Amino acid sequence: MPTCEDGFFDYLRAIDCSDVEVYAISEGSVVFPKVPLMRIEGPVAVVQLLETPFVNLVNYASLVTTNAARHRFVAGKEKSLLEFGLRRAQGPDGGISASRYCYMGGFDATSNVAAGRLFGIPLRGTHSHAFVSSFMSLDEIVDKTLQSYDGSSTCEDFVSLVQTWLNRIKRTNSLRGAFGETNQSELAAFTSYALALPNNFLALVDTYDVMSSGVPNFCAVALALNEFGYKATGIRLDSGDLAYLSIEARKFFGALEKEFAIPEFGKTIITASNDLNEETIDALNKQGHEMDSFGIGTYLVTCYSQAALGCVFKLVEINNQPRMKLSEDVTKVSIPCKKRCYRLYGREGYPLVDIMTGANEPTPKVGERILCRHPFNESKRAYVVPQHVEELLKCYWPGDSGVKREELPTLKNTRDRCMQHLEHMRPDHMRRLNPTPYKVSVSAKLYDFIHFLWLNEAPVGELQ
Amino acid sequence: MPTCEDGFFDYLRAIDCSDVEVYAISEGSVVFPKVPLMRIEGPVAVVQLLETPFVNLVNYASLVTTNAARHRFVAGKEKSLLEFGLRRAQGPDGGISASRYCYMGGFDATSNVAAGRLFGIPLRGTHSHAFVSSFMSLDEIVDKTLQSYDGSSTCEDFVSLVQTWLNRIKRTNSLRGAFGETNQSELAAFTSYALALPNNFLALVDTYDVMSSGVPNFCAVALALNEFGYKATGIRLDSGDLAYLSIEARKFFGALEKEFAIPEFGKTIITASNDLNEETIDALNKQGHEMDSFGIGTYLVTCYSQAALGCVFKLVEINNQPRMKLSEDVTKVSIPCKKRCYRLYGREGYPLVDIMTGANEPTPKVGERILCRHPFNESKRAYVVPQHVEELLKCYWPGDSGVKREELPTLKNTRDRCMQHLEHMRPDHMRRLNPTPYKVSVSAKLYDFIHFLWLNEAPVGELQ
Repeated sequence: MPTCEDGFFDYLRAIDCSDVEVYAISEGSVVFPKVPLMRIEGPVAVVQLLETPFVNLVNYASLVTTNAARHRFVAGKEKSLLEFGLRRAQGPDGGISASRYCYMGGFDATSNVAAGRLFGIPLRGTHSHAFVSSFMSLDEIVDKTLQSYDGSSTCEDFVSLVQTWLNRIKRTNSLRGAFGETNQSELAAFTSYALALPNNFLALVDTYDVMSSGVPNFCAVALALNEFGYKATGIRLDSGDLAYLSIEARKFFGALEKEFAIPEFGKTIITASNDLNEETIDALNKQGHEMDSFGIGTYLVTCYSQAALGCVFKLVEINNQPRMKLSEDVTKVSIPCKKRCYRLYGREGYPLVDIMTGANEPTPKVGERILCRHPFNESKRAYVVPQHVEELLKCYWPGDSGVKREELPTLKNTRDRCMQHLEHMRPDHMRRLNPTPYKVSVSAKLYDFIHFLWLNEAPVGELQ
Repeated sequence: MPTCEDGFFDYLRAIDCSDVEVYAISEGSVVFPKVPLMRIEGPVAVVQLLETPFVNLVNYASLVTTNAARHRFVAGKEKSLLEFGLRRAQGPDGGISASRYCYMGGFDATSNVAAGRLFGIPLRGTHSHAFVSSFMSLDEIVDKTLQSYDGSSTCEDFVSLVQTWLNRIKRTNSLRGAFGETNQSELAAFTSYALALPNNFLALVDTYDVMSSGVPNFCAVALALNEFGYKATGIRLDSGDLAYLSIEARKFFGALEKEFAIPEFGKTIITASNDLNEETIDALNKQGHEMDSFGIGTYLVTCYSQAALGCVFKLVEINNQPRMKLSEDVTKVSIPCKKRCYRLYGREGYPLVDIMTGANEPTPKVGERILCRHPFNESKRAYVVPQHVEELLKCYWPGDSGVKREELPTLKNTRDRCMQHLEHMRPDHMRRLNPTPYKVSVSAKLYDFIHFLWLNEAPVGELQ
């Protein structure tokens, strides 16, 4: 027996969203619980079909952007943050979304080439451990020539030059005895990589041993490149005691800067990776280190410390009748009615409070006192005189309504908005431990209406 | 300055996988750490391009299948398990992958309609809370007619019939005083839903109050349907004390079965949802409940208790030279060489041990004693006489090699394999607390070779 009539499929075929309007808080905005991220208006059956796609698209995107912003917050503004998560992300699309939203949340670049191409995110990465171990010796390098950076000269045997530099480093006074024979397959891999990408020589130095092989080999190649006008990018540490190794590597670079009078060589970039997360970065910062850049994968893109965000979709009004979902758990009670949402800013430029009003209430005005009430707690109320009022929900899909549609910003602009929003939050709202909760309120009129409904609609036994 | 030559793009354009061979353990198999899930052979540059896609595709798929199997294990074989995760999954593709691999791991159905269509997974779900609250009263129902199941008669006013049944239920001796006025918008929603889908009436009963509204309203509609030959599917509980509510609902159904002599009505299906996971299901089982079916979302699809799996891609051999990644952490040491992998079964039909050998070693033979050694621990070794030998890595992409390619099974067959594999594991390997580790070994020859390499290749200071 068929489970539905053919007419239903005809109906589905003919559906469009011309009767639907979608309002949303602009992507990249800082948002708070209870304030709707989107308001969708339209025929109930069509809007119900949008529920799952919208909730799916909003939940993970918001979660991973927040996670990226938290990593940025703990790493500080000066560090370079690279998203390295593709191989651990939850499916291919999870990986693409992760790269996009981590960039939005404040990361500088991704190793996900597809995301770079799709969204214009800067790309950054190193070679793999397998690249290093695929070499056996320097004899494997066939083409040994390197044109100088400015094109004025050619190094005919870059391999020999690298070996010469390795010996010079070994004989420097300040590094005497610091290392013995370095691993030759690693040296071959670095040399080969530098010949292919002399402008972007970033070497993974932990395949064998960081201080007795990886760093000396890197420096030999970097100094050979330097002779022909190229500046090596840096090293990546991917195992071991990252703080200690970064400090030792920094000393090594500093000694060579001094010894060979190569300006800035001591500042060669040190990137670290290997299961980093908010906590490990915080711990590294506390103990002191010399890393300039962090490559973060698993914990970032899978949002390991909280793998899901629980945004939901609620019916708040139908045929001009308000609807309200009651629950014994007050955090699950929905705020009824088609609403408008505003952010009110204070004298210092910080946002003070978000306020929701009925759709037909007047807009809060700059310089005019307005009562902001906690939606459910009678005693929590405050008068606010905003210095600036921002309407949060903007029309991104007007359907046939004729409402003006907001332009969709570029990813770069959204990222800038996100950075700017985070910057303008009052610091006590942003601290990691015991932050001051940001206030979310309703207008006096909406408060009264909620509580009128509550008293009149709650079935017996519902609220205890 | 360009970062690479045009020739590189020409090279990429011309690449194909005709020189690549991919061997893999069949999807749906139970696998253990150290045994390679795939063996990829081919030109190193091409194979390196496959690294990230393969690792991305294998990691999450294996993780969520395992998570589904763990949920099945704790729920038991008799319960129906429904995957309800799309809205919380990590991106749209995360959701599709989740539905596919949860089915493979032992779930019975999904609420993800797209996954149902793509992969033929059975679909199951209920209406939403919003559907219930979108109704105001029974007056909204325009078409009140219902044809009987066998087509022999028509109910002209199904709405009145439902109201009649609600009154009958209220007056039954055993339920006298159990409930008062039920919520009319809920009753309207249930009635409307039953008129549209009389063969699949599964009602979400917790929008208002489960025992004083949802369950009586459901029963009124179910008994009205019963009069015209339809069997109601059941109820879903999505909040509150699930164990208690399921027991109370079961009693209610039982009382009506007796009162109105409706066979099986007491066995009406009770489905529960609301942030369920392995632990909550285990706790529910321990305290006792009357649920037949669990709908599981967030914790299942995001693998909340461990959001990432750390499979990696290692170079083990190049130009017939073995390669081995050493590490201070012995669990990160890779096993070198192109290998073959076998599962050895004992007399009772259980797998005893997995063994890896060099690619050119003879295959272990049924009835012949073979020495299985722990790859790194000299003292751990055992002789095994297998009753059955299964080669694990099979060719799924032969390239131009002429090797016979395995057929790709259907999802249903893969699911059957997975169920059968899990069934045939020795129970002590499968218990949730302190399971006996399953043994993974290498041949004596491979053991000697690993340790020869280790001694000869480890740079000074590498192994401590």
